[in-house]
Amino acid sequence: MSFKRLLPLEEARRVIETNYTPADPVVVERGLDTALGYVLAEDIRSEIDVPGFDRSTVDGYAVRSQDLIGAGETSPRRLLLAGSVEVGFQPPRPLSAGECIAVPTGGAIPRGADAVVMKEYAHVEEGHVTFYRGVGLGENTMKRGADIARGETVCTKQTVLTSREIGLLAALGLERVKVFRKPVVALISTGNEVQNIGEIHDEYRVYDINSHALSALLREVGAEPLPLGVARDDYDAIRQKIICGLEL
Amino acid sequence: MSFKRLLPLEEARRVIETNYTPADPVVVERGLDTALGYVLAEDIRSEIDVPGFDRSTVDGYAVRSQDLIGAGETSPRRLLLAGSVEVGFQPPRPLSAGECIAVPTGGAIPRGADAVVMKEYAHVEEGHVTFYRGVGLGENTMKRGADIARGETVCTKQTVLTSREIGLLAALGLERVKVFRKPVVALISTGNEVQNIGEIHDEYRVYDINSHALSALLREVGAEPLPLGVARDDYDAIRQKIICGLEL
Repeated sequence: MSFKRLLPLEEARRVIETNYTPADPVVVERGLDTALGYVLAEDIRSEIDVPGFDRSTVDGYAVRSQDLIGAGETSPRRLLLAGSVEVGFQPPRPLSAGECIAVPTGGAIPRGADAVVMKEYAHVEEGHVTFYRGVGLGENTMKRGADIARGETVCTKQTVLTSREIGLLAALGLERVKVFRKPVVALISTGNEVQNIGEIHDEYRVYDINSHALSALLREVGAEPLPLGVARDDYDAIRQKIICGLEL
Repeated sequence: MSFKRLLPLEEARRVIETNYTPADPVVVERGLDTALGYVLAEDIRSEIDVPGFDRSTVDGYAVRSQDLIGAGETSPRRLLLAGSVEVGFQPPRPLSAGECIAVPTGGAIPRGADAVVMKEYAHVEEGHVTFYRGVGLGENTMKRGADIARGETVCTKQTVLTSREIGLLAALGLERVKVFRKPVVALISTGNEVQNIGEIHDEYRVYDINSHALSALLREVGAEPLPLGVARDDYDAIRQKIICGLEL
């Protein structure tokens, strides 16, 4: 038996670096629901405002705040109930002075209104609403584009897509997204003593741990394993496996 | 428009708990390479020793340490080279007094030997090996079962399988493993204002963020999402979706 010379790590690195130029990462399109864990290959700019309209954050009545100046338990104000907003639809009409319009949480605030009073502070009767408190300008509202403004870059290239980013991209209505293909890492287990799992145990051999542990580890860090199996301790056998891995 | 009463969280919980008994988790078998992230449904006891033999941790010569007592640069000892061990195979013969056997890293140590001298401290010539230093009992060896002893419980039920556990199970030669099926979580997005992603944007509506963000989040925590799409704000529509989810 002749013992083999071991290649020092630095020398092995040099051999690889002088003989191999890494390819540019491949860009692929993925559906949003299969993009989790991928790395974004493009900047994502929003083409819409989110929300797309001034929105009520409570169930209540859209009003002009100036109409309720001075309103209180002992000095209520009474406004004409001029209609109601349905969630998902444009308000039926703009608001005029002396009017209010019922609006649910998430509903659009009509033009002319600048605040929403919670329903708990109002009383409806005969087409009118009585208010027992005033309201600040903009109170209980959320401005169009407050979450995401049109033109805003919401995700930059190189971002790893977690559930948070998936939610952001869904908010923009994106169905597909450009990502980098996961790095594919071929694995070769070498050694005459290495047995495949599932085979009857030979006490002088060892099971192929590395293929399985490293495949799992690669998945955990966002790469795609390509296990090529066990190569005998033989120059040509190992060479053949490497060529096979490069061609796949 | 009539505003709806909101069910308090505690009341909603009570309704579910009094009307629904969670099923026992389902046990399924998975191949080792698709078991990552699953929860183990059985204790795993090793049926083998790992390694399965006393193993050399260096390239060198298996010896009886007592044969080299007193060996040094100025007082070398000479032993008969009685053969060599091939990795993955039983040693060719036991070791007798006055002999040594060449053994590579990972090779089995022959019966009769109790230590390995690194090749750097030995010189081979004409069927004999000259040693320039002694060796301690057990030096450069690893006992059979040192990593995992036969009968040892290496993973317990309820363990989440990471790459570490996958490696352990591979070391035992296991091809398949019993795990709990991932919890399947059905998702219903509700609201007349909710649009599917990919649809042309209606500025008074919002895209279905929750289906996609929650699906991704469920995957991140080891559950399996079952998105059932958008239900209109309608008792029967929502009821139908829930029934559909329970039947899947």
